[in-house]
Amino acid sequence: MPEQEGRFAYEGLDRLIHERARLSVLTSLLTHPKGLTFVELKAMCSLTDGNLSRHLSILEQDGMVLIEKGHEKNRPQTLCRITAYGKKRYLEYLETLEQVVRDAAKIAEGSKANSRGRMRPAEA
Amino acid sequence: MPEQEGRFAYEGLDRLIHERARLSVLTSLLTHPKGLTFVELKAMCSLTDGNLSRHLSILEQDGMVLIEKGHEKNRPQTLCRITAYGKKRYLEYLETLEQVVRDAAKIAEGSKANSRGRMRPAEA
Repeated sequence: MPEQEGRFAYEGLDRLIHERARLSVLTSLLTHPKGLTFVELKAMCSLTDGNLSRHLSILEQDGMVLIEKGHEKNRPQTLCRITAYGKKRYLEYLETLEQVVRDAAKIAEGSKANSRGRMRPAEA
Repeated sequence: MPEQEGRFAYEGLDRLIHERARLSVLTSLLTHPKGLTFVELKAMCSLTDGNLSRHLSILEQDGMVLIEKGHEKNRPQTLCRITAYGKKRYLEYLETLEQVVRDAAKIAEGSKANSRGRMRPAEA
């Protein structure tokens, strides 16, 4: 009995958002609606200046983020915010991401129940 | 008050698994522990022969899937299965994916509550 065609295609996983660094940036901005400075975003996402600049520029060109160059206490400061369009796109993406988690979670639950309760190794 | 460094870095988003086609393939195989034929997998993931072959080969080289070429009713048939190692890697990845969903879900809930209850456009 063949399952529905495309059942696991996850076409809603928007490639622009799915890339790990951009997913980090957008989730940070979504959860900080007043915006984050370039410096804050860089630290939260553990990205280099160059990588963050590159990904922000891709997202800005697509209209998903807004980048404002200004000053704070006479020092240049770049403020980044998610746009209403970016939020809409992210929330559509999130629906598919939640579906992936739902599909996998039943199996994951079974595995945890069957595991021998081994501890995760402590982080170095 | 600065938030924890790397709070949104999501370093557990294993690049080998996160790529959309491979996430499709691995989720299909995880939820079908007896394995799927190449033809079934292709349909479930909406991939072309070439794309599926390429991604399966990447996953096989990494030890995450097992590919057995055999015969069924005198016709060649390729059976694909996730390995124990592949399942372990996927479940580690899933923990971070669930964290992304948790981080975003609070905001998403707020948005749904604030929306005007507009229906999603029907699929064409």
